[in-house]
Amino acid sequence: VKVGGKHYRTVWVQGGKVKLIDQNLLPHEFSIATSASSMQTAAAIKDMTVRGAPAIGAAAGYAMAQAIGEAKGNWRAAKASRKLIESTRPTAVELFHATARVWQAAREDSGRARVRSAAQEASEQARAAWEEASAIADESAAACRAIGEIGAGELFSHGNNILTHCNAGWLACVDWGTALSPIYFYNRSGGRPFVYSSETRPRGQGARLTAWELGHEAVNHRIISDGMSASLMASGAIDAVIVGADRIAANGDTANKIGTYSHAIAALHHGIPFYVAAPTSTIDFSTPRGGRIPIEQRSEDEVHWVKGADEKGVIRRVRWTAPGSRAINPAFDVTPAQLITAVITEKGIFKPGELWRVV
Amino acid sequence: VKVGGKHYRTVWVQGGKVKLIDQNLLPHEFSIATSASSMQTAAAIKDMTVRGAPAIGAAAGYAMAQAIGEAKGNWRAAKASRKLIESTRPTAVELFHATARVWQAAREDSGRARVRSAAQEASEQARAAWEEASAIADESAAACRAIGEIGAGELFSHGNNILTHCNAGWLACVDWGTALSPIYFYNRSGGRPFVYSSETRPRGQGARLTAWELGHEAVNHRIISDGMSASLMASGAIDAVIVGADRIAANGDTANKIGTYSHAIAALHHGIPFYVAAPTSTIDFSTPRGGRIPIEQRSEDEVHWVKGADEKGVIRRVRWTAPGSRAINPAFDVTPAQLITAVITEKGIFKPGELWRVV
Repeated sequence: VKVGGKHYRTVWVQGGKVKLIDQNLLPHEFSIATSASSMQTAAAIKDMTVRGAPAIGAAAGYAMAQAIGEAKGNWRAAKASRKLIESTRPTAVELFHATARVWQAAREDSGRARVRSAAQEASEQARAAWEEASAIADESAAACRAIGEIGAGELFSHGNNILTHCNAGWLACVDWGTALSPIYFYNRSGGRPFVYSSETRPRGQGARLTAWELGHEAVNHRIISDGMSASLMASGAIDAVIVGADRIAANGDTANKIGTYSHAIAALHHGIPFYVAAPTSTIDFSTPRGGRIPIEQRSEDEVHWVKGADEKGVIRRVRWTAPGSRAINPAFDVTPAQLITAVITEKGIFKPGELWRVV
Repeated sequence: VKVGGKHYRTVWVQGGKVKLIDQNLLPHEFSIATSASSMQTAAAIKDMTVRGAPAIGAAAGYAMAQAIGEAKGNWRAAKASRKLIESTRPTAVELFHATARVWQAAREDSGRARVRSAAQEASEQARAAWEEASAIADESAAACRAIGEIGAGELFSHGNNILTHCNAGWLACVDWGTALSPIYFYNRSGGRPFVYSSETRPRGQGARLTAWELGHEAVNHRIISDGMSASLMASGAIDAVIVGADRIAANGDTANKIGTYSHAIAALHHGIPFYVAAPTSTIDFSTPRGGRIPIEQRSEDEVHWVKGADEKGVIRRVRWTAPGSRAINPAFDVTPAQLITAVITEKGIFKPGELWRVV
């Protein structure tokens, strides 16, 4: 994302440390968090300093590389760190793909060497791990760019007025975004997209992050409450819906931020196309259908407490719900394949029932 | 509603003044606002100190009585006040029913007198106006009680797990509530209702008011974000949906708080019954269908700013959306009759297409 004329990835490496745009401080403060250890990076994933499936994947890859470096050849220690990294967020499959890839790259390197000291070997493994983590991030950025090019024509064939939910933009990815990438591509190509950004309770990724990104990209947009989408559809204000994905099952069922499924049902009811945009790394062929995707349950405090800036710009948290009342907070829902018009990937556009063609 | 062992109506008259539970201060503070003039009461309707269609109706009736008293026989002045009262909220039809009834009662009284001074006549008209306004409030309370008795058996025949949206409880009415009245009736009769209270962005009537009421009535409940209802329905957690209404058109199309229509579509998709509960005064036979119901557009600041209590209990407003981004804020949506299982009224339960039977 471009901030103050400078282009930033959402997560990157600098001076041997992992750097992350701190998404908990946005939209009120743009700040870069630095992580010097796998534990810090894992904590950043868990507390959502970094969020969004592809960005989580990249951060998890770097965390795994940090852990392998820290372990200095002690694979039991590395394994414990891997477990910890993988315990941060259960739904986004790219996290698990990334840790597995980096782990594998380091392990394979073990076998390759002829004669070297244990210290040399550990250092070589760490190097291989960091290389693989960087490759994951670069591939992810390239995939998101391709999603933008491929998706723009398809999405805007229906009209210029697009609904999106949560944040599947620059901040959710290493670069460009998934659901927002076609919108940015179209906008930069001279198109005139108009985006309804569904605020996405409870954490407000649509109100805070997507709106912030769209503003920085000079895309015309309005924030709406999540419950407004159906009546906008009924009035003809929305031409198509596009969202990201945290995990796509083999049959095309898609886990994404809570509230996605409501928009999908409303789109079906009004005959409006509903797209999922995601790199193919989001597809989990080992999960046959959506019912098998683990859904993260987060703290009910996220429903009760809202963070924002007061009239003087001071960041504060306020409880807006009735004291003593409890809430529930499933972080994701599953949209069945039948409600999805197509999945837009870096390898092309697929019917959700034909994802096997990706392989 | 019962607070501290004492029973309160939502709006009532005391010492010649209109008293209102201040709903903008709830759930953090329970406070009674006093209105000594029609202008103050109209302002209380507009700024939502009092809200909910039947409570708006009762407050508007009292405001009209205040205005007629203030006018002292100057009907041009009274008419100007009536216009002002009627300009506060365009969607709830009970507001217009109430001002018309009070106006009519005072006017009819004009014709009745034989020999009396202008001052005597004005005073008699004011008395008639206040009597009519009180009758409206009493009828509304009785209707809501009947809705509870009539609706409980129907609603809970589907199971104990109920979704509701916004606040159609004690606070939305003079007494008892509409959508929540069957729940309170069932709970007091020894039933064990479980209520999902959809928080109702942007103003949080579900999170703030319904949850607060349910807590005071010891009804087991959980607050959910508006976008969570569809996945709860898919998982079998919801047996029926019940909401109130701000205006029901002659064909059964129902205007209610924004977000209602999303829940209704999701209920249809999952084969879950969807009820509207409202006194028959909410039916507007002069509006043939939902497309003709005027929808209030409120300030976008309601989407941007959230009010709540900070860690120390201090009430603060915070802006949680991206600075510079704009929002839209339609206050209501229209649920078509085909999505409504039945309308529960004080005169019985009607199919939305058969509301003419009410007359």
